[in-house]
Amino acid sequence: MKSTSKRVVVVGGVAGGASAAARLRRLDEYAEITILERGQDVSFANCGLPYHIGGEIPARDALAVQTPESLTQMLDLDVRNLHEAVSIDREVKSVRVRKLQDGSEFDLAYDYLILSPGASPIRPPLPGLDNPKVLTLRNLQDMDAIIEQSQTAKHITVIGAGFIGLEVAEQFKHLGKNVSLVELQDQVLPQLDPEMAQAIEKEMKANGVEVITGDGIQSVKEDVDELKAKLASGKTLETDLIVLSIGVKPDSQLAKAAGLDLGPRGHIIVNEFQQTSDPTVYAVGDAVETKDGVFEGRINIPLGGPANRQGRIAADHINNPGKTRPYPGSLGTSIVRAFKLAAGITGYSEKRLKMAGQKYSSVIVTDFNHASYYPGAVPLTIKVIWNPETGIILGAQAFGLEGVDKRLDVVATAIRGKLTIEDLEHLELSYAPPFGSAKDPVNIAGFAAKNAEDGYVKTVKQIPDIDGLQIVDVRPPAICKCEPLGDVTFCIPLGALRKNLDKLDKTKPVLTVCKMGKSSYMAARILTQHGFDVLSLEGGTTTLVR
Amino acid sequence: MKSTSKRVVVVGGVAGGASAAARLRRLDEYAEITILERGQDVSFANCGLPYHIGGEIPARDALAVQTPESLTQMLDLDVRNLHEAVSIDREVKSVRVRKLQDGSEFDLAYDYLILSPGASPIRPPLPGLDNPKVLTLRNLQDMDAIIEQSQTAKHITVIGAGFIGLEVAEQFKHLGKNVSLVELQDQVLPQLDPEMAQAIEKEMKANGVEVITGDGIQSVKEDVDELKAKLASGKTLETDLIVLSIGVKPDSQLAKAAGLDLGPRGHIIVNEFQQTSDPTVYAVGDAVETKDGVFEGRINIPLGGPANRQGRIAADHINNPGKTRPYPGSLGTSIVRAFKLAAGITGYSEKRLKMAGQKYSSVIVTDFNHASYYPGAVPLTIKVIWNPETGIILGAQAFGLEGVDKRLDVVATAIRGKLTIEDLEHLELSYAPPFGSAKDPVNIAGFAAKNAEDGYVKTVKQIPDIDGLQIVDVRPPAICKCEPLGDVTFCIPLGALRKNLDKLDKTKPVLTVCKMGKSSYMAARILTQHGFDVLSLEGGTTTLVR
Repeated sequence: MKSTSKRVVVVGGVAGGASAAARLRRLDEYAEITILERGQDVSFANCGLPYHIGGEIPARDALAVQTPESLTQMLDLDVRNLHEAVSIDREVKSVRVRKLQDGSEFDLAYDYLILSPGASPIRPPLPGLDNPKVLTLRNLQDMDAIIEQSQTAKHITVIGAGFIGLEVAEQFKHLGKNVSLVELQDQVLPQLDPEMAQAIEKEMKANGVEVITGDGIQSVKEDVDELKAKLASGKTLETDLIVLSIGVKPDSQLAKAAGLDLGPRGHIIVNEFQQTSDPTVYAVGDAVETKDGVFEGRINIPLGGPANRQGRIAADHINNPGKTRPYPGSLGTSIVRAFKLAAGITGYSEKRLKMAGQKYSSVIVTDFNHASYYPGAVPLTIKVIWNPETGIILGAQAFGLEGVDKRLDVVATAIRGKLTIEDLEHLELSYAPPFGSAKDPVNIAGFAAKNAEDGYVKTVKQIPDIDGLQIVDVRPPAICKCEPLGDVTFCIPLGALRKNLDKLDKTKPVLTVCKMGKSSYMAARILTQHGFDVLSLEGGTTTLVR
Repeated sequence: MKSTSKRVVVVGGVAGGASAAARLRRLDEYAEITILERGQDVSFANCGLPYHIGGEIPARDALAVQTPESLTQMLDLDVRNLHEAVSIDREVKSVRVRKLQDGSEFDLAYDYLILSPGASPIRPPLPGLDNPKVLTLRNLQDMDAIIEQSQTAKHITVIGAGFIGLEVAEQFKHLGKNVSLVELQDQVLPQLDPEMAQAIEKEMKANGVEVITGDGIQSVKEDVDELKAKLASGKTLETDLIVLSIGVKPDSQLAKAAGLDLGPRGHIIVNEFQQTSDPTVYAVGDAVETKDGVFEGRINIPLGGPANRQGRIAADHINNPGKTRPYPGSLGTSIVRAFKLAAGITGYSEKRLKMAGQKYSSVIVTDFNHASYYPGAVPLTIKVIWNPETGIILGAQAFGLEGVDKRLDVVATAIRGKLTIEDLEHLELSYAPPFGSAKDPVNIAGFAAKNAEDGYVKTVKQIPDIDGLQIVDVRPPAICKCEPLGDVTFCIPLGALRKNLDKLDKTKPVLTVCKMGKSSYMAARILTQHGFDVLSLEGGTTTLVR
């Protein structure tokens, strides 16, 4: 017979909640741990849902990482799915629970309460958006409904081109559907800066997805068997099914009703040990606002990694506050694959820094994922952003066919270590021809950043509108001539530049351009030292927004 | 007409030397830069040599990253291949140069001298090792000779199972040769700890390579058309060709004769700006001893990445000492692919820490390279080593089929940032099912390390020899029964453990065991809390040395 050490109730049995319960059990065999989950499933693989829709993860069971039964068996947890926590009496430390199957209610006493309610897809109150053919994707049942309804659909519209919207659109295309992807902002992947997201947009289009940016859904009408989705521009899409993926809002009603402090956008405010304004009530995951991993201040990052690790901290703190290390903050590291291309971000984008009124510098470089002389080398583009006063890295974005995750992870680690762009120069990363290069793209980004800071080169990210600008395009002449980048373009390969200085007008500005941004830098160095006023195009033509 | 700013002579036109010259030219159009290279080629891809032998890099030209002509054209360098620097007169700042084609000599004056002599394969003075069928691999000509002589060879012996020896053995196997790989130490990849290297040994054997460890070459005899390689054990290998790959020694004779300070093993000592004991003479690359990236002290790391970046620093310092950032030290980050498996290291191994008399703790974990529910997930094993007093990470090793390079790079970055094992717990790495997991193996290593430090679990890396040890094997019973790990083994799945506690003897010690080291930890937590004296096997059966 075991005697109970403490009674812990966990509201929400996915990601953060499940992690908290599992960690707590490992720490304490004698705690009485109850998980209340209003849905059917606990601890399922949210991030895998799009991939089962597209058949890439063939077995639905693979997504049910744990079942109520397996959690009970492995972790001796009392798992109550289809049970909703309807109110909290913090005074008497008790949760009012409704059994969703029969509507009956009961009270559950706790010593500690962990809230992991998650976030729900936003469904704006627009005409027709309550149509049953307008679906959202949050759980296995949503996924089942999308799969069922999409069987006969020929055309599917995905609203929202963030990470999940892109994945869903890609997966529908794999199934041979006609897919329209609609995004309110002027770019796909609004989390990224536009020049870093456009490669993904091109990849979606190249694979047959109709991408509509800068336009939003206004209304939906059902007409016989078809939906007519009217966009703000006036354009109407005739479609069979709509998947809404325009973001999530925290499910914090329970916390709010219990009088816990919420942030400005309704997230549950927690301290560095995941405690809410009531220290016996913890909160974790998508619904909380926690420490920003880059700046002072608070942030909401609705992602699986932070949720899991926050759950662990809550359990640690309940078990032994003295041994618990504070949550260091979230960076929002994210990645998405769209067909063959990957793109992602860690830390702050230029857009967010502008909105936050922070000073920053940035650099974009393109280089190969591994030794260029080894077969299969493909280009990878990385943008690194730093504080110009301290050099400390604030964020990075990357896209490419291979190795994007690795570079994001390296920079995410560098941000955690408060490393500077100078430190990036000398990161000693693994190099053998199949895996990397003697100078990794991350090193190159450090070099480029320092070259700019040291005044060796002035760079631009797009072709500037400057009177009399002479573009020196050092790409192979055949390419230069086929794709002229401006009215006054000189096609001069790098090796011939020193001999052709007299062709250029020293009284007029020069922009050097190449495919990856390296030769243009070299050309800029030559021209600068010969007295020209030179700009070099960062990252090469890869990141030109055209 | 340009006027010369400074005269710089670079001795050695590969890796570090080529990088120094190229960077210096970009910084200074007006420097007079001469490269002296005693070999045929400059700036070739050393690390690619094994892959051309095996045909994986089909075109030999791909390895000639630059030619003397291309360097001259692109960088306006005076490149003299087949020119050997035979002596340095530091008094008058002049190098004596011999033209290898005709033996004539001349003097070359310098303002700054950069030495990048590299290192030569060690060829011990053993009987018969001077046989022309005993080859080493350093440059393109060595590679050509190996390719030519191996055409008719049926059996090839590779002596030395370090990174290059493994690559060469693997490539010969790809060509269908019979290959014996002989290593003096008791393991392949002696840079790694034995339990982290054995997977590579198994992979080599599984692919048909005869691996002989703990044995060394003693003599070679030629007998008709065959070599007889006699090993220390008495074993004789009948073979057609021997490739010696037992390490390198610095080519520092020129520096020594010039009176520059050398380290205990003959490496050129440089300061953090790559200056030798003569501040106008710089040295970079395989031949130098520079700052250790982990501890106080000095180290020689003969790798391409450090060489290239050291070359850059030398150029920066010659051009503008005030803007030059000191070299932060080398970690020795390395990786090798052997057939489908990769393995590598960054920072210190347990072996090296022992030799250095440093205190350390370590942990081994095994987990999947990406979300286990997404197709293609494969296990990856990582060992992290840290300072038990500060928690600061000292090194890591990893092996697996996918994602080894990424984890090594993350830890290499963490080492540069002086991060602790606690920081590893909360690295926020990119997660989408095809790329990672909500809890990356690096996070898991942090968790495991903290669990050990916090006293939640006592672990071992191998099965200990303890009287009365009860092994609780929580792998599926079928596997447990097929592969018993000790005399007293209980096959109890984790979910059934709490119900079977009475089967175990509380007065005797318990070892929990599973495949990946996670379930055994969970089992250990249950048993510990029920009053058992428990050890858990780290990393699972994957790293059992059997």
